[in-house]
Amino acid sequence: MHVVHVQVHVKPEAVESFRQATRDNARGSLQEPGIVRFDVCQSVDDPTRFVLVEVYRTKEDPPRHRETAHYKAWREAVEPMMAEPRTKAEYVNVHPEDSDWV
Amino acid sequence: MHVVHVQVHVKPEAVESFRQATRDNARGSLQEPGIVRFDVCQSVDDPTRFVLVEVYRTKEDPPRHRETAHYKAWREAVEPMMAEPRTKAEYVNVHPEDSDWV
Repeated sequence: MHVVHVQVHVKPEAVESFRQATRDNARGSLQEPGIVRFDVCQSVDDPTRFVLVEVYRTKEDPPRHRETAHYKAWREAVEPMMAEPRTKAEYVNVHPEDSDWV
Repeated sequence: MHVVHVQVHVKPEAVESFRQATRDNARGSLQEPGIVRFDVCQSVDDPTRFVLVEVYRTKEDPPRHRETAHYKAWREAVEPMMAEPRTKAEYVNVHPEDSDWV
């Protein structure tokens, strides 16, 4: 698996609209054959900080994701909500193995 | 859900033994009733960096996890492997909802 963690910091007034826009993006993303998981989490210590845990079958799948309508709609919707540029880190899975990933 | 991301940086010579010890801990952790997921990922850019994605049913479950034999064995095994102290961040789930988490 190709795992991407996206760290997001939004403006305080944008927290609720970011949650909604990102839920919509997650639901759309989970329809893509190349996406296994798309978890959205909000920081306990600072509710303006989120992490998106995106699990792709291969590293060729993120560019396909970025061509989808739901991703493009999300990117446009959240652009004015950002308190700072988002950052990402890329990983491979150690556990579970590919065949056990759900 | 109560989601904990643990960031780990190990010494270069400890990468393989850390992978093995952490796989063992993940398998044991997944037997705990309070743990839904225990994913272990390794950085693409820097193989000495890992993130543990631990998904607990409630915030009361992490202290129970720390009392288990597999956690204590892991903590002891990996202590000399650390390049720097590990850090953690705590989250709540925005998507999926609790009932849809697998």
